[in-house]
Amino acid sequence: MDPVTLKLAAEPLIMEALREDMNAGDLSTEAVMPEAHPATVELIAKQDGVISGLDVYERTFQLLDPEARFVRCARGQRAGEPEEATPDALLVADGCEVRSGELLGHMTGDARALLSGERVALNYLQRMSGIATYTHRVAAMLEGTRTTLVDTRKTTPNMRVFEKDAVRAGGAHNHRYNLSQAVMLKDNHIDAAGGIAEAVAAARERAPFVCTVEVEVENLKGVREAVEAGADIIMFDNMTHDEMAEAIRLIDGRAKTECSGNVTAENMQALVDLGVDYISSGALTHSAGILDLSMKHLRLL
Amino acid sequence: MDPVTLKLAAEPLIMEALREDMNAGDLSTEAVMPEAHPATVELIAKQDGVISGLDVYERTFQLLDPEARFVRCARGQRAGEPEEATPDALLVADGCEVRSGELLGHMTGDARALLSGERVALNYLQRMSGIATYTHRVAAMLEGTRTTLVDTRKTTPNMRVFEKDAVRAGGAHNHRYNLSQAVMLKDNHIDAAGGIAEAVAAARERAPFVCTVEVEVENLKGVREAVEAGADIIMFDNMTHDEMAEAIRLIDGRAKTECSGNVTAENMQALVDLGVDYISSGALTHSAGILDLSMKHLRLL
Amino acid sequence: MDPVTLKLAAEPLIMEALREDMNAGDLSTEAVMPEAHPATVELIAKQDGVISGLDVYERTFQLLDPEARFVRCARGQRAGEPEEATPDALLVADGCEVRSGELLGHMTGDARALLSGERVALNYLQRMSGIATYTHRVAAMLEGTRTTLVDTRKTTPNMRVFEKDAVRAGGAHNHRYNLSQAVMLKDNHIDAAGGIAEAVAAARERAPFVCTVEVEVENLKGVREAVEAGADIIMFDNMTHDEMAEAIRLIDGRAKTECSGNVTAENMQALVDLGVDYISSGALTHSAGILDLSMKHLRLL
Amino acid sequence: MDPVTLKLAAEPLIMEALREDMNAGDLSTEAVMPEAHPATVELIAKQDGVISGLDVYERTFQLLDPEARFVRCARGQRAGEPEEATPDALLVADGCEVRSGELLGHMTGDARALLSGERVALNYLQRMSGIATYTHRVAAMLEGTRTTLVDTRKTTPNMRVFEKDAVRAGGAHNHRYNLSQAVMLKDNHIDAAGGIAEAVAAARERAPFVCTVEVEVENLKGVREAVEAGADIIMFDNMTHDEMAEAIRLIDGRAKTECSGNVTAENMQALVDLGVDYISSGALTHSAGILDLSMKHLRLL
Amino acid sequence: MDPVTLKLAAEPLIMEALREDMNAGDLSTEAVMPEAHPATVELIAKQDGVISGLDVYERTFQLLDPEARFVRCARGQRAGEPEEATPDALLVADGCEVRSGELLGHMTGDARALLSGERVALNYLQRMSGIATYTHRVAAMLEGTRTTLVDTRKTTPNMRVFEKDAVRAGGAHNHRYNLSQAVMLKDNHIDAAGGIAEAVAAARERAPFVCTVEVEVENLKGVREAVEAGADIIMFDNMTHDEMAEAIRLIDGRAKTECSGNVTAENMQALVDLGVDYISSGALTHSAGILDLSMKHLRLL
Amino acid sequence: MDPVTLKLAAEPLIMEALREDMNAGDLSTEAVMPEAHPATVELIAKQDGVISGLDVYERTFQLLDPEARFVRCARGQRAGEPEEATPDALLVADGCEVRSGELLGHMTGDARALLSGERVALNYLQRMSGIATYTHRVAAMLEGTRTTLVDTRKTTPNMRVFEKDAVRAGGAHNHRYNLSQAVMLKDNHIDAAGGIAEAVAAARERAPFVCTVEVEVENLKGVREAVEAGADIIMFDNMTHDEMAEAIRLIDGRAKTECSGNVTAENMQALVDLGVDYISSGALTHSAGILDLSMKHLRLL
Repeated sequence: MDPVTLKLAAEPLIMEALREDMNAGDLSTEAVMPEAHPATVELIAKQDGVISGLDVYERTFQLLDPEARFVRCARGQRAGEPEEATPDALLVADGCEVRSGELLGHMTGDARALLSGERVALNYLQRMSGIATYTHRVAAMLEGTRTTLVDTRKTTPNMRVFEKDAVRAGGAHNHRYNLSQAVMLKDNHIDAAGGIAEAVAAARERAPFVCTVEVEVENLKGVREAVEAGADIIMFDNMTHDEMAEAIRLIDGRAKTECSGNVTAENMQALVDLGVDYISSGALTHSAGILDLSMKHLRLL
Repeated sequence: MDPVTLKLAAEPLIMEALREDMNAGDLSTEAVMPEAHPATVELIAKQDGVISGLDVYERTFQLLDPEARFVRCARGQRAGEPEEATPDALLVADGCEVRSGELLGHMTGDARALLSGERVALNYLQRMSGIATYTHRVAAMLEGTRTTLVDTRKTTPNMRVFEKDAVRAGGAHNHRYNLSQAVMLKDNHIDAAGGIAEAVAAARERAPFVCTVEVEVENLKGVREAVEAGADIIMFDNMTHDEMAEAIRLIDGRAKTECSGNVTAENMQALVDLGVDYISSGALTHSAGILDLSMKHLRLL
Repeated sequence: MDPVTLKLAAEPLIMEALREDMNAGDLSTEAVMPEAHPATVELIAKQDGVISGLDVYERTFQLLDPEARFVRCARGQRAGEPEEATPDALLVADGCEVRSGELLGHMTGDARALLSGERVALNYLQRMSGIATYTHRVAAMLEGTRTTLVDTRKTTPNMRVFEKDAVRAGGAHNHRYNLSQAVMLKDNHIDAAGGIAEAVAAARERAPFVCTVEVEVENLKGVREAVEAGADIIMFDNMTHDEMAEAIRLIDGRAKTECSGNVTAENMQALVDLGVDYISSGALTHSAGILDLSMKHLRLL
Repeated sequence: MDPVTLKLAAEPLIMEALREDMNAGDLSTEAVMPEAHPATVELIAKQDGVISGLDVYERTFQLLDPEARFVRCARGQRAGEPEEATPDALLVADGCEVRSGELLGHMTGDARALLSGERVALNYLQRMSGIATYTHRVAAMLEGTRTTLVDTRKTTPNMRVFEKDAVRAGGAHNHRYNLSQAVMLKDNHIDAAGGIAEAVAAARERAPFVCTVEVEVENLKGVREAVEAGADIIMFDNMTHDEMAEAIRLIDGRAKTECSGNVTAENMQALVDLGVDYISSGALTHSAGILDLSMKHLRLL
Repeated sequence: MDPVTLKLAAEPLIMEALREDMNAGDLSTEAVMPEAHPATVELIAKQDGVISGLDVYERTFQLLDPEARFVRCARGQRAGEPEEATPDALLVADGCEVRSGELLGHMTGDARALLSGERVALNYLQRMSGIATYTHRVAAMLEGTRTTLVDTRKTTPNMRVFEKDAVRAGGAHNHRYNLSQAVMLKDNHIDAAGGIAEAVAAARERAPFVCTVEVEVENLKGVREAVEAGADIIMFDNMTHDEMAEAIRLIDGRAKTECSGNVTAENMQALVDLGVDYISSGALTHSAGILDLSMKHLRLL
Repeated sequence: MDPVTLKLAAEPLIMEALREDMNAGDLSTEAVMPEAHPATVELIAKQDGVISGLDVYERTFQLLDPEARFVRCARGQRAGEPEEATPDALLVADGCEVRSGELLGHMTGDARALLSGERVALNYLQRMSGIATYTHRVAAMLEGTRTTLVDTRKTTPNMRVFEKDAVRAGGAHNHRYNLSQAVMLKDNHIDAAGGIAEAVAAARERAPFVCTVEVEVENLKGVREAVEAGADIIMFDNMTHDEMAEAIRLIDGRAKTECSGNVTAENMQALVDLGVDYISSGALTHSAGILDLSMKHLRLL
């Protein structure tokens, strides 16, 4: 994650998560470790997948011990095998594919910070890596096509900056970050405005001129109106394959096209064949599960 | 969720999630709805499952419009069918099983609040209900046994108060809320203290006397030491079935027993037969997925 | 201001501003008013201008007394003259032109809240109205042309949501809200990427696909590269009139055009004649001054 | 700005301003600069004026990159000319007069922090310097007289600690910081208390004994009552020149005198001749405009 | 406490205190009271003393249940005896003397809020009343003299707004609220400035002109310098009785005089006889102890 | 205090306390010290007692000057006498007994931070040491017995993490940290549940299984029910000596026993003789007073 974003957007949330896990100290660690001890611990993959969130993981410990550092291993380094000096470009980084049993790096710092921060750090890293892994698998189906996979706003509350970062690490692109970044006009907005043309005009009047305007349509009539209203992006909602084919012909490059919904190997191929520009999938962030990772072999230095 | 917990612990996080989704307003809704309009919208289940988070869902809208209210339907009410007056006790509530197509209730308030808050409200409700649904399924395997299913600290950052609530709605119990609530001594703690007896003694000295002390052990030697040290709970880490059987005999009720790890139908039954007191599962919170729910038929009043 | 934006984005800042003005109470008011007294006070314009921020003004008092209300007058109502019932559509509202001596409305609530909140409420209202007034004057020069006046990010820190609202009330449009909403590639970005084409490509790869990409160019070579790179908007930086004319011919509608800088009656007309799409002006927010308004005739009820 | 004030009062507001400008990262900079690069950039004056806010400017970047540093140039150093070693006392500092084209210093740090923080840093620095510049011009009119120029509470919300600092840099003094620092009794307070004597007595009873009590009066009767009530400061509100002359005679040094209002070269001289102690001007903070400054010539190190 | 101060300064601290006591809910109350029940409970004095903090007490519950209300009893009402309608002016209020066994009022609201908020509400009320009680006792020794008792900045961290309010309820006055409200020059400040005259001059230059300047002196030489430098208040630090007598003669009304330190019945009388203006005592806030109060007879309505 | 707890739980409160004392800077120090000066100052005990809070004291200054450090002296070092190198284990630390006149250590840092932070740092240190001192005295009465002294939730709002730490430094143990850590069922809870058995069962169902359940009883009937319900801890409320003796016989080690209330030398001995496990005392935190400490001999370096 970019350091500025990590500092401004992520850090306050990580701090809040640490407080969630320790409102009045870590009773266990405080009891047995009254003094500081520099220590190191290994971060090991326990499943195959794509890693995401290494900076978030490191920052979690740094918030407890400013001297804490994560030193990355060479890609493909197996836990337990001898390590060699490696150029930076070959080190594990966000977006890398990792294998079960791979040693990703060494986290060093005060042993108390390593023990007290472990759970929060892994909760972030495993979830982000789970999303990157799942996204990577879905994005692979679109490789070589002109269709781009994008996420949605169906993210976990207070996790968006992390989850959208993980989606990019997994090889997909982001849809709008939030309701303030771009306009999307759905049926209720259109009804309130009195029609697609009116809704698009109202959005152009209100929104910053740099914002794109997307319209969600259900049929070809809507498609026609949206194109004429000058929509930048048109999203097909529950339209049949034939309707979408006709819609894309109608639009003829005058707007970008998006299809949302339950993505499977079959319907995805059909959409690609139609030439839709974007396929958005909420499952990337709401159903990815985690990537199993563990911290092992804590050693006092 | 209890109103005091909702107010003190949940509300600031919901507010933060709303700000995550709207740092500078909802461009779409602002453009087309310059004026307030009371409206109502239906909340409908799109999958079978167990509901959790209805108060969180309602509060999300109330933070945008203090007058907003969620009125619950009778259990089993199908969307589209006529509704009748129902005693409170028969209304949909957290922990209820719902069916796909079921009408759960009506959310009313300013149309702008209903549109702007929809995504955040559903992101909470779907995730909590997903956890309740998954937990319910796993807990069912333990019904009628003396073994209790419990969760872990493998929750999504800044979602713990919601996810632990959902676990209870699903029919399981909670393990410790965080590192400040109870003591759990793992190998690193034990090494630092110089042994199980020393670690337990240090914990009794430091922690509030009301806190229980749990010890994680890997073999029968550890079990013996933990019992003698007076551990309240002993957790078996990666021990064989026979070792655990022997361990339970050794402990003989002097401590509670817990087994953690990958819960499947088979190993769960074996653990139940052994008579372990608690089975903890991280998957309840980190791999549950969501329950699909939707808001439909917004109607101006 | 939209109530959702007012609640989520503006309210915490207003609360902070009240705390800035009262870290330990209002010594004067506390001394002389130990008890609550409902009261009303008039809001009167002391200069001609355009009003903006009435909801912010009212909310400031409501944060001190939840029962406080601002009741708007009919447009054109003179202070001291008899008032009549007026349909809502004819009441003073953000964006209205007001005249010196005009009675804008009545603020009612606990006298202590009215006195303690007056300065903060007016500091917001006067500044927002000052921006609306100045913007209105500049925007008038563009009336009837195809060129749109927009603001910049040269806003007062922690005032952006208020100042951008005031710009709209004054009749201009907003440029991007902040660095997270849209891409603008300046010379340093272009140098870092290795050229305009590379920079635009990197931005398309990183930014949400809904985000537009603007490129700032200094000469016709840059214009050509930006068009070819697919920039959505091209900003002319310090180019001569002839260069800009040539640039607009070159672009030929394939991108929107923006000109920034010191806006005067003369150069504005020249830019309009060229047919530039947007003229952006930092002065709208950083040099507008205030509109003089006052609260008079506090009366206990 | 004093480092303690900068840390406690200013830093949280600067951080909030950075979040206002980057709720989810700087899309442009992130896209083209994936890696850290130490860099330096020049800060140059583009208008004549008085500088204020250099510490605030530096701290803005330090909040993004803790290693960032601002190195000040010798006073009068022209941009583009060779620099020489200079004793600290001759370096540019808050309160210095600067000339258009003057090189004020070099800001160094990670190029990404320099780009992402530029706008917020300049927004603070330009506004503070604008106030210092305007204040300096007004204060010059009072040089050599016994009358002191002071500011008011008509500051921009959440900018007071910055704007009051800038007023001092410009050569004027501060009036009370806020409603909690000192007492000022206006007509409504006096009415509520039942008279000037009663209001002053109530204030003495309630306010910390270290707080001064100021009374605003409209005529000579009020002046007499205020003096007799023991007011520390008496402010003349809309009184004629002759009335003020008489008032000052009446007061005869028993209280300090203040005159507020629209300060012009003429009326200021008349007030000075009368011997009023303080002239307060809201315009210092609400109408000063900015001082144009720019960051140029970013260079990777 | 004044409602504006209660809202702006006290409420965030009360909320934080509630979160300190319930980071994840009130386990006991949640377990046994799943549903709302309106209830009422009595507030009874268990010691003689002076009450302070009733608004803080009520607000604590209101933060958990907005409908909660505290209804005050007539002064002198004994718990268990019949109550009668009483004019407002005769009801228990901050600053009243109460007797052990006196019924102060009825707190009503949701039973869960009453139980969950009890400890925090009493922690505030007992501590504030303890300070008011102790202050009242000390202030009584000064009754009828021209010497005023004042507090210091030796307050409990994050309790100042409460403790200074309690001091006033107990009949004493406040010294400066904090380091930003007034100037006090101690030996280190004087050394840094190069003398008393220089320190006072520097303070007049820097501090808002409404701020008084106090100088702490250790001997008659210091007294003389402070008077000549124009100090508003002179504090005697560890001076003998004779020195202070001489000091007061020297000062002759040109500055206020303050004596700080260990206040006992004897030395207080001696100071009064000398005619010192203010006696300040840190003990009022740091050593007062609590006033015992209890909530009894919770009754469901 | 443990560094993780200091960072997560204490630091935000210390920062808030500093802002309470300096909402707009330290007027006195800013006036006389425009430049940074490294300095050192001595921390000296002015009473005999037990020290607690040294890390909190040091952190207070570090929040103003990150370079500030507290260097501890050898135990028993008298102020003014020569110092010698001392092994760490013999340095002053939390929990040490100190004597009036003892030099505890040297605080170094920018002189401005030392002056501006002094009051807040001492307010924490004196209060924590006062609690440790008083606790030490009471705990001494129980030395050699099997009864343990514990604190309560009668702490100062927003001071709990500090005050509970001080109680441990004084040699006692902590009772539950807050309402979320353990269950305590009082009469109102028991009434709401319909009896002790029902209340305990409800608590076991709701609370995390690691939480202990304590029941408060008033007579032998309650004791019997609580034991049978499986309470972990039974608290005797206002029971006679004979009843408690009988209660302890009845309980016979099946639950821990606690007695709360007014602890005096006499009744404490009687309780010890009965063999009660825990005696809890609210006075430890609400009535301890402060330990007098001072900072002297500030010296510029």
